Parts: sequence; structure tokens; C-alpha cells
Amino acid sequence: MSVAPSDRRAQALALLERLEPGAPERVAGNLDDFHEAAAEILLGFAFTDVVARDGLPLATREMLTVAMLAAMGTAPGQLEFHMRAALNTGVTREQIVEIVLQVAVYAGIPASMNAITAAKSAFNAR
Amino acid sequence: MSVAPSDRRAQALALLERLEPGAPERVAGNLDDFHEAAAEILLGFAFTDVVARDGLPLATREMLTVAMLAAMGTAPGQLEFHMRAALNTGVTREQIVEIVLQVAVYAGIPASMNAITAAKSAFNAR
Amino acid sequence: MSVAPSDRRAQALALLERLEPGAPERVAGNLDDFHEAAAEILLGFAFTDVVARDGLPLATREMLTVAMLAAMGTAPGQLEFHMRAALNTGVTREQIVEIVLQVAVYAGIPASMNAITAAKSAFNAR
Amino acid sequence: MSVAPSDRRAQALALLERLEPGAPERVAGNLDDFHEAAAEILLGFAFTDVVARDGLPLATREMLTVAMLAAMGTAPGQLEFHMRAALNTGVTREQIVEIVLQVAVYAGIPASMNAITAAKSAFNAR
Amino acid sequence: MSVAPSDRRAQALALLERLEPGAPERVAGNLDDFHEAAAEILLGFAFTDVVARDGLPLATREMLTVAMLAAMGTAPGQLEFHMRAALNTGVTREQIVEIVLQVAVYAGIPASMNAITAAKSAFNAR
Amino acid sequence: MSVAPSDRRAQALALLERLEPGAPERVAGNLDDFHEAAAEILLGFAFTDVVARDGLPLATREMLTVAMLAAMGTAPGQLEFHMRAALNTGVTREQIVEIVLQVAVYAGIPASMNAITAAKSAFNAR
Repeated sequence: MSVAPSDRRAQALALLERLEPGAPERVAGNLDDFHEAAAEILLGFAFTDVVARDGLPLATREMLTVAMLAAMGTAPGQLEFHMRAALNTGVTREQIVEIVLQVAVYAGIPASMNAITAAKSAFNAR
Repeated sequence: MSVAPSDRRAQALALLERLEPGAPERVAGNLDDFHEAAAEILLGFAFTDVVARDGLPLATREMLTVAMLAAMGTAPGQLEFHMRAALNTGVTREQIVEIVLQVAVYAGIPASMNAITAAKSAFNAR
Repeated sequence: MSVAPSDRRAQALALLERLEPGAPERVAGNLDDFHEAAAEILLGFAFTDVVARDGLPLATREMLTVAMLAAMGTAPGQLEFHMRAALNTGVTREQIVEIVLQVAVYAGIPASMNAITAAKSAFNAR
Repeated sequence: MSVAPSDRRAQALALLERLEPGAPERVAGNLDDFHEAAAEILLGFAFTDVVARDGLPLATREMLTVAMLAAMGTAPGQLEFHMRAALNTGVTREQIVEIVLQVAVYAGIPASMNAITAAKSAFNAR
Repeated sequence: MSVAPSDRRAQALALLERLEPGAPERVAGNLDDFHEAAAEILLGFAFTDVVARDGLPLATREMLTVAMLAAMGTAPGQLEFHMRAALNTGVTREQIVEIVLQVAVYAGIPASMNAITAAKSAFNAR
Repeated sequence: MSVAPSDRRAQALALLERLEPGAPERVAGNLDDFHEAAAEILLGFAFTDVVARDGLPLATREMLTVAMLAAMGTAPGQLEFHMRAALNTGVTREQIVEIVLQVAVYAGIPASMNAITAAKSAFNAR
């Protein structure tokens, strides 16, 4: 697992490309404008260290991410991104509906309603 | 889906029994002591209306619940319960490890550390 | 309390009409576009099962909802809706001011400032 | 409203005595042990500046506080204190039940379950 | 520390002027439109009672505020304001970068990404 | 910054030793019992990748961590740990008092009261 920073970054961006084709340039560009090490540190941890691990299929991981972001309710833009990423990695619309309804149980109706807004945007983006 | 309150309650408790054998008496008893309608309203919504729905396997639903409760961080007792329920419905320890690591990405290291504590308790309870 | 799904939905929408005349078509339409059962499950729980209960006047319930949404801070659109619903069910502007100031005590000044923005929008909408 | 610090503190503690007889010594002692100005700053803001204001009855304010603390889920000890304070200022057990059920709608079932635990402790303390 | 309300307000606005020149008219105007006592109560507590205290330099206090608002994630507008206020009180861009990266550790990657957006806006505003 | 996993872990534990002498064995032991890679992934990100960076003194970083954990309110055990770590890295009790009071402004009085409890435990532990 020992990787050079440039490899760690590259591996993270390769995973991000699977979540949404074209996203790496946009996301890495945004982070590079902020600080030269931000992409490697943040995306390297998220994608190279954790999300790229074996043990759970990528689609399952996106289902978990959608549920967490919807329940927390503090990152609506990223919730919508991961709704799209879920669809891109093989999660079905029907499964997203089920996740969103389950969010209502554990985080309340307003969190579920906000997730419906994000899901509909993601559905319409395809 | 139209069910009498008594059926709605019974269906919820049947689902709860699948999450943890023996839990229905304890949970329903706790709620009945509070208010006669609490179990039907709260468990009926959670389990009869939502979690019992087709569309996602129960094990997947428990994975989502564990992720949400760990990310929110406000219900440690119920997080530990759903760690056990996840194991009871077929989620493996290895999968729980992966969920807990992914919590760190989306909700921070302290949320993940608290989830590790809950997971270890659930692992030891078996 | 045993009701057919169609009745449960109808009762929820009748309550929603009291919160804001005209809201049922908009809210139910939004949910129906997402999934055919969403309105019955989410609004049925929220409004038929809980908010329509005796035991607290609707105006008091809206005061509680405004306080909770303002303190949580994760659903600004719904906070503004319930500010209007509070006014529609008989809560006075002076009472909303008091709620918003009290939010500062329990959830901090930024939560209160955000609630002021929502309250001013609701005041101006009338 | 211009008051000397000693008066501001005294007014805050007088309000606190209404919430729970005997609480002022305990709470002020706890804060005085931490820093000499903590009681005046924190309790002065909470109770002298805000909660003692006209515009809402004290019982209504305690209902709002219970709802906010239950929805936020981050201060279980203070939630239980304000459950007792609600009862002490005239809120009925039946009203607390309704608040707790409404918490489930806006903050989720686990938040409501935790509030049930706090409510039952408060009920048993009397 | 005993001050008349008008002085308490004036002291709060003087502190606010240090955070962002020109902000007092805008912020106080917004609050005065809501309720005549809001500025004194909310800004008086925040700035006169707490932030104006000795014991921490104002720049350090703004670093703490930026970290807290970024970690909580519920007040994006105020996060951006305090990013600017941090710069105005002597915090460097490099220090803000470090704070934002540290937010990722304790509150997760999405919170950090949102803070990057706010920081970039604040950097561009100068 | 390219480091082998064993070095990344060792560097993280060296930083942790500065936060609290003796903590590395306890924390790493707890994580190793959970999963062999947990310490490297979680502590490596937190301490090797971020907290060990130049750009902010360690004492300042601990002040930020204390403020964030107190504002979030979801990790009381870790809040107390970082209160002690703040003292261990040169933050004074007077500075901790100021942080805790400032938490009340941005996250509310209950968050500040909980932080007072944690601070007093940390003060007494020395």
C-alpha cells in the first residue's frame, strides 16, 4: 500500500473517474486551485485509502455514501454528486428510492425530502 | 398495505425479531410503558412501512442504517444495536469493518472511532 | 386509526392544506414524481400519524417544528415553509421572534441568524 | 434591560429556580468552579436575556427547548433536565408524549427513542 | 462589565467593524428589521460578552470560529463571512488552508470540501 | 511525503505520543484489535497527513480540534482526550476557558456546558 504521492493522487482520480466520467479534471482542478497538496491528501484518503479497498463493491459503497450524506444533511451538492455516482456504478433508481425512504426513518422526514430533491436532479441528469 | 393498527404493530415486531431475536418484547415493552400508541406509530413507520419493503435485502438495509447512525453520531446505543442486527441478518464482520472505515471519509475520524467501539461490542456479544 | 392507504394520504393532504393552502398539490406532485408510495409513507407518517393527533394544538406543533428545524439547520427550505405554516395556523410574528431568539440559546447564534432570514421571508410572503 | 453583572446572574438563577427548585446552587457551583464569569455570561444570556422575556409562557419555552434538544441529540443530560423543567413549569406528561412523537417526524426515530428514555427518567423522578 | 443596552450594542458593532469594515450597518440593519432587541441580544452576547474578551487574540478566535462553522456545516453564509473576517484580522491564507485540511480529519471530507468553496470565495473577495 | 505504511503508522503514533504520553499503545491497540489496517488508515490520515503538517503550531491545532469537537457534540470521549492534549501541547487553562465560552456563541449553551464538563475532567486529570 506504500505509494508515492503522485501515484496516490492518480489512483484516487482513477476511482473518481469511475464515479462520474469527467469528474477528475473538475474536482482536482478545484482542489489544486486551493492548495497543491489538497487533492492528494483529501482524495487520497477518501478514494485511494478507503473507497478503493476490496471488501465492498463500489455500488454498495455509493449506497452507503448516499445514505450518510442524506442523513447528515450538510453537503447537498455532494449528495447530488453521489446520487449520480450511485447510478453510474450500478445502483438502480429503485434502490435509490428505497435508500431515500429509509433515510426518513433514521434522520427524519426533512432529510428524506431533501434527498428526494437530490435524487430527482440526478435522475434527470441522465 | 392497508393494515389494522394491531397488524401494523405485529408486522413491525416480526421484523424486529429478525434483527435481534428477543428484541420485540424489550423494545415494545419500553415503548408501551411510555405511551400505548408509541410502538405502533414509531415501529410501524420504521419497520412495517419502510424497512420491510421489498427492493433492498434486509442485510443491505442494516448496512445503510449502521452507516447513517455512525455518521450522525447521536444514538450510540442504537448504533450498537444495529451493529448486532447487521451481523444477525448476514452482514459479515469484514463488511462492517469496511463500513466503519468509510464513515471516517464522510463524517470524520471521531465518528469512525466511535463506530469501532460499537462494532467491537457487537462482535464480542456473539 | 386503521385507514386505507388512500385515506391515509387524503388525511395527510388535508392537514397539509391547513398548513399552507395550495401546498398539497405541489408537495404531493413532487413526491408522486419520485415514487408512487412516497406521499403516503412520508406524509402519512408525518401528518396522519403524528401531527394530526390530538394533544397539542396545531399552532403549538408548528412552533415546535420551527424550533426543531432552526436548531438542526439542515433544511432551510422546509424551515421557511414551516415559518409560513406557523403564521397560517395562528402563531403570531411576535411569537416567532421569541422562538428565533431562543434558538440562539440552544443551537447558537448562526442557527438563529439563519432562522431570522427564514422568518423574514415568511413575513414578507404574506 | 441594563443590569449589573451581579443582578444579571441573580435574575438568571431566579429563572433557573423556577425550572427546577434547587438547581441554581448546583448549576452555578459547577460553572463557578470553571470560571468566575461563566455563570453570568452563559446563564445570563440564556435565562436573563432570552428565556425570561415576555412573549411566550415559560411552559411553552420549555416545550420548545425539549423539542430542540431532542432533535439535536447532542446533550442527553440537558434534555433530561429540561424534561423535568417542562413538568415543573406546567407541561403535562401527555404534552411531552406528543412532543416526543413529533421529534420522530423531524429528526428521526432514534432521536425520538432517545427522547423517550429521557422522558421516562423525568417522569420517574417525580 | 455592566453596560447599558445601547453601549452593549455599540461595543458589539465596533467589534464587528474589525471583522469586516462596513459589516455593522448591514448586519445591524438586517437584525433591526426583524426585532428592535435582536442586535443587542444576539450580537451583544456574541461580540460584547464573548469575542471581545481578553485571553485570546481576535485572529485566533476567528480561526476557531472558521473551524467550528466548517465542522458543523449548517451555516455556509456565515462560514464565508468568517473566512473573510479571519483574513481581515490577520490570519493568513496558508493558515486557513491548514484549518480546512484539519476539518477533514474531525468532520469528514465533505465538510472540508465545502470549507474550500467558502475559503476560495473569501480569497477572491480581496 | 511518500512513506511506507509502517513509517506512516510510526509517524502517526509519534505525533500521538506528543498529544498524550502513553496514548499510542492504548489507541493503536484498540485499533489493531479491530482491523490490522485501521491504525495506519485512520491515524495515518489524521496525524501523519494532516496534524503533523507545518503551517500551524501543534497547540493551535489542538485548540481548533477542541473547538470543533465541542461544537459538533458527538464525541465526548474524544473531546476530553483533546482537552488533555491541548494542555499537554502548551494550551493554557485560561485559553481553554475562552474556547469553551466561544463554543456557546457558535454552537449554543448546551454544547458549551458539555465542553465545561470535559474541560474540568481534563483539568482534574493533571
